[in-house]
Amino acid sequence: MKTESRIQELGLSLPKPSSAGLYTPVRKAGNMLYISGQIPWLDGEVKYSGKVGGERDIEYGQEAARLCILNMLAAVKSVIGDLDKIRQIVKITVMVSSENGFDKQHIVANGASQLLIDIFGENGRAARSAVGVNQLPMNVTVEIEGIIEVEE
Amino acid sequence: MKTESRIQELGLSLPKPSSAGLYTPVRKAGNMLYISGQIPWLDGEVKYSGKVGGERDIEYGQEAARLCILNMLAAVKSVIGDLDKIRQIVKITVMVSSENGFDKQHIVANGASQLLIDIFGENGRAARSAVGVNQLPMNVTVEIEGIIEVEE
Amino acid sequence: MKTESRIQELGLSLPKPSSAGLYTPVRKAGNMLYISGQIPWLDGEVKYSGKVGGERDIEYGQEAARLCILNMLAAVKSVIGDLDKIRQIVKITVMVSSENGFDKQHIVANGASQLLIDIFGENGRAARSAVGVNQLPMNVTVEIEGIIEVEE
Repeated sequence: MKTESRIQELGLSLPKPSSAGLYTPVRKAGNMLYISGQIPWLDGEVKYSGKVGGERDIEYGQEAARLCILNMLAAVKSVIGDLDKIRQIVKITVMVSSENGFDKQHIVANGASQLLIDIFGENGRAARSAVGVNQLPMNVTVEIEGIIEVEE
Repeated sequence: MKTESRIQELGLSLPKPSSAGLYTPVRKAGNMLYISGQIPWLDGEVKYSGKVGGERDIEYGQEAARLCILNMLAAVKSVIGDLDKIRQIVKITVMVSSENGFDKQHIVANGASQLLIDIFGENGRAARSAVGVNQLPMNVTVEIEGIIEVEE
Repeated sequence: MKTESRIQELGLSLPKPSSAGLYTPVRKAGNMLYISGQIPWLDGEVKYSGKVGGERDIEYGQEAARLCILNMLAAVKSVIGDLDKIRQIVKITVMVSSENGFDKQHIVANGASQLLIDIFGENGRAARSAVGVNQLPMNVTVEIEGIIEVEE
């Protein structure tokens, strides 16, 4: 359980995975995991809401992005059991709820990217898109989806 | 033709697939199909336009999402011939044209997710992202892209 | 070096690939390349900024889209060495920074699609999504991510 130890060393812990609704948090095809858009919630409660560039600042967005990543890993663990089976984080898409005129989505996304590198090293340095959107579900500040390659 | 029978049982039918332009509706790589962003049109005419949370309500958005899925399946059928070759719906991304302040994109997206489950059962319960955007092409209400795994 | 010759025939050239930050421009999984969101910059300087439908017109957006594609190919070359190893352009997602009310994102995206076809012929006719967003990083006009299949 090297990966989970690393998460603990960073002073972090995995949230309880959210239950599935009409969609599944993670879908496996071959050795690729497709992860549903993760939001910054904890125990069923949204922790980061509102738009960056308005009521929220960049640091707030970065913290939201980190919680999305922890939720992503919790979802993956609930499917594959052991996070050490992760071969590489292939791609993340970071969608930032943005006030008109705010154009630092890539800096917000760095919150997610840095955490993945802190946990997985070079295997966590994923391809990435960072974009702004005018609204996200439940008014969350950030939503992140991803593609992860695992051992067969 | 189990899948198409199921679609008929639901009282639905597949639209005529739209013709390709400078892009292709479906691209196959290995046994994965990548499906272009599908919009809610029928016989070349946009059926659902405008933003949810403003001139349009959630139910309208859900109907738009359902038509996007039917167009997706029509596109897939035009490429693989028989929808029974679908192994699983891997991922859908549901983009909802949203008025500022509207944050129920996940409820709109349920229109798509429920239909996929109605048609494919558990194999239709895909990973999913639902996001709001301020504008979609031709002012459509919803656009949905997807990844589908098929038999080799 | 057929592909690069073709790019030269079109009167174009590949930009210098941008250096990686907390993410990587291209991630390889199996024989698929996942390419980070590419923006219209050149030598570290943003060349196309502002929203289409407001201060910028469709043609400007198309030029921005073309530069995104050239940056994508430069990134891919830096990883696989020879662009002739590209088997097909599988999918592109074209995000257009859009003023409220502008709904011709698909026409803007044609700038990218046409260039891919000009360079790769039918193998460049990718699946595609075109969407509007209210803000992109560094206020760029267009951002494009992609998935490309290469020879093993």
